[in-house]
Amino acid sequence: MIKESTICAISTPSGQGAIALVRVSGAEALVVCNHIFTPANKAESILNQLHATVRFGTIVEATGAVVDEVLVSVFRAPHSFTGEDLVEISCHASQYIQQRILQLLLDNGCTMASAGEFTQRAFLNGKMDLLQAEAVADVIASTSAASHRLAVNQMRGGFSSELTVLRAQLLDFTSLVELELDFSEEEVEFANREQLKELAEKIDRMISRLVDSFSVGNAIKTGIPVAIVGKTNVGKSTLLNVLLHEERAIVSDVHGTTRDVIEDTIVLGGLTFRFIDTAGIRQTLDKVESLGIEKTFQKIQQASIVLLLIDSTEGITGIKDFITEQLPYSEGKKLIVVYNKADLITAAKKAELEAIALPPDVVPAFISAKQKREIDRLQQLLLEAAQVPAISANDVIVTNARHYEALQKALTAIKRVGEGLQQNISGDFLSQDIRECLHYLGEITGQISTDEVLGNIFSKFCIGK
Amino acid sequence: MIKESTICAISTPSGQGAIALVRVSGAEALVVCNHIFTPANKAESILNQLHATVRFGTIVEATGAVVDEVLVSVFRAPHSFTGEDLVEISCHASQYIQQRILQLLLDNGCTMASAGEFTQRAFLNGKMDLLQAEAVADVIASTSAASHRLAVNQMRGGFSSELTVLRAQLLDFTSLVELELDFSEEEVEFANREQLKELAEKIDRMISRLVDSFSVGNAIKTGIPVAIVGKTNVGKSTLLNVLLHEERAIVSDVHGTTRDVIEDTIVLGGLTFRFIDTAGIRQTLDKVESLGIEKTFQKIQQASIVLLLIDSTEGITGIKDFITEQLPYSEGKKLIVVYNKADLITAAKKAELEAIALPPDVVPAFISAKQKREIDRLQQLLLEAAQVPAISANDVIVTNARHYEALQKALTAIKRVGEGLQQNISGDFLSQDIRECLHYLGEITGQISTDEVLGNIFSKFCIGK
Repeated sequence: MIKESTICAISTPSGQGAIALVRVSGAEALVVCNHIFTPANKAESILNQLHATVRFGTIVEATGAVVDEVLVSVFRAPHSFTGEDLVEISCHASQYIQQRILQLLLDNGCTMASAGEFTQRAFLNGKMDLLQAEAVADVIASTSAASHRLAVNQMRGGFSSELTVLRAQLLDFTSLVELELDFSEEEVEFANREQLKELAEKIDRMISRLVDSFSVGNAIKTGIPVAIVGKTNVGKSTLLNVLLHEERAIVSDVHGTTRDVIEDTIVLGGLTFRFIDTAGIRQTLDKVESLGIEKTFQKIQQASIVLLLIDSTEGITGIKDFITEQLPYSEGKKLIVVYNKADLITAAKKAELEAIALPPDVVPAFISAKQKREIDRLQQLLLEAAQVPAISANDVIVTNARHYEALQKALTAIKRVGEGLQQNISGDFLSQDIRECLHYLGEITGQISTDEVLGNIFSKFCIGK
Repeated sequence: MIKESTICAISTPSGQGAIALVRVSGAEALVVCNHIFTPANKAESILNQLHATVRFGTIVEATGAVVDEVLVSVFRAPHSFTGEDLVEISCHASQYIQQRILQLLLDNGCTMASAGEFTQRAFLNGKMDLLQAEAVADVIASTSAASHRLAVNQMRGGFSSELTVLRAQLLDFTSLVELELDFSEEEVEFANREQLKELAEKIDRMISRLVDSFSVGNAIKTGIPVAIVGKTNVGKSTLLNVLLHEERAIVSDVHGTTRDVIEDTIVLGGLTFRFIDTAGIRQTLDKVESLGIEKTFQKIQQASIVLLLIDSTEGITGIKDFITEQLPYSEGKKLIVVYNKADLITAAKKAELEAIALPPDVVPAFISAKQKREIDRLQQLLLEAAQVPAISANDVIVTNARHYEALQKALTAIKRVGEGLQQNISGDFLSQDIRECLHYLGEITGQISTDEVLGNIFSKFCIGK
């Protein structure tokens, strides 16, 4: 599986800056770099440079012309990130210099690294499992404190070691069960059924926990979906702009770089909130008091927070009935009721609105988006409604759809193993279900992988990682 | 002069990528980084880390949460780039992580580095002179092979050591001349006038050479100015597009990042050609055959290459008279005559055009911009006309307008010294001229500098350098 070629790539973001890093990895990394690098102290050849040391010198063209003054760091196999000999050339971040150094490396026999190839090699050389490798991409893409913490937890091991141990135990049992099949006429039982049952239950519990964690993990990674429901002109755009304004820089980063679809997202208290486009819902809401619930309301089902925005100067007739009967506001969804334009109403009118009965635990907020009043109060309500538990370093949370899918399949298989044991089914059927569970667990950590799966995973990385 | 604070900055280009570098420099660099970095091998404190070594570990928040897995390189004073203790943290290039690490450094007492402050400290700590420091910025900004080579030559010493030696010799003489003034009544001569005259001549020669080199140096750095002169519809835009197309990537880089004004520039054979906007000239040319030369022709004076573009199907009546009498085509400027749309004329017509007498050494090119025919021939003519000598590692060429200005002033002063010696003027006048020359030479290398000059120079750098 391990590739023979020596690869190179620019690993720092493109553009101008002070410093850029060019990375070279592979069996020939030192030999190639020795051709183009002249240490300031000529006695110190890079070929003899110790692991994890840095030397100053110059990159030199075949003609003898100096390309740049650089620092060269050497990491020796198997202690490097990739597990191969790895050289990092730290040069000035001029496009010209970066391109020249790459060209010189290519001229001396390197090949251009494909997206994620350094991490892929780290995986293939056993420096990390697939879960950890995938987390590296998530770490780079993370834009909020919570999504970043999940990705770092994952990169640092996460649930993969636990999964690997359980999988290894299950593998032992398969061998025993399959051994029984060789002696099928003698009706022996090498695999202790009670122990196998215990293990299956343990795996079932762990996988169930992981599968359940995905809704939280996904919300953290992609943002907590919020639907703002309100009539036209109730101030939705103004409110969104006020909320977005607080985190303008981060928002624009997200839009430009990590998402295909431009969505309104804000980061509050380290959590990303993602506003679902409810244009259709607002249109419908104008008709709702007379016509009842429309199909477009199904969109709200995607949200985990429904923010009902009401014009204080108008109110909504029969608001409680509307909420309980007409809003698709079910268990597990949080409702926030916000009266906007509160600066335009009298104290009496406010008292009147406050007196309107709402579902238990729903305390309305009175804000003015235009005057930017009580926006903190609204932010606090959003954070309370987010229902995301604080994540500690030991928390085990699935954020990756690929893992979620494989875990669901593994869960189905291990449940069949449990049922099979209950019903004393024959060893060959049992073995088949165990094998299936092993397969899906192995897919997650990468113990079982195809070139296609790997290609698909690593192609989502950036070049140079 | 040396600042007490410990500074930090992100040194790699902004944006997402695999790796980013955060740099920390100053007396407290190791102590600060020790607070936020936990080495993988906990026994190996960063405080004891040897110069020019790299360690793997994690950046950790005060809460104990891991921010990222990083590599930390330590460079100890005075051997680092800045001459101070310098730490480079190589982290994942997520915006979130970069900002968190910067924040942690600031929380632990670092201050944000201003533009160019790392290089400024290197200069203030005597790691490089001002010429070399300025060359660092030029190296980063260089986009063609030739401008890059000049900048690298400069960064690696260039003419600064020669200048420093001559200045030191001149300084010795001033001391002697000024000593004479203390004994003015005794009419002694401590300073050997013959030797001083020799030195003044040597300095004069060297500075003259440097001053003369500026036109070449400036052409290389900012591009060789080319004026395309031709009637409307002669195919100027098509020709420019064809030329630009060859180097599209580099051109767009130049536009977006290193220039304020968007100009058409192309890189050919490692040289930048800059096309002067001659819209006015073209308009005028339509009238020129009847009305003669217009004021807008003065623009052509800026060009060092004049490219006369003629529609083959039309020609220009009396082309030789036009060139010799009407084009402001003087010595030192190169003329290229190009017949465009050559695919539309017969061989007979071509022979007829070829027979038209042109100034000596001008051989017309027949091209078709639209059909992209003979474009290489035109590129070759441009390169030949560029008149830029091949630059070797030892060439001494001034590219910086600040240096050019100071050199001109130093030259004026040293010429006065020479004349003064010729005329046997008194020591106090002589000393004054020598002091002036010393001052301007010192300004170039930075031996004489003011905070304002330094501020002005380093503010043009990027943050993190």
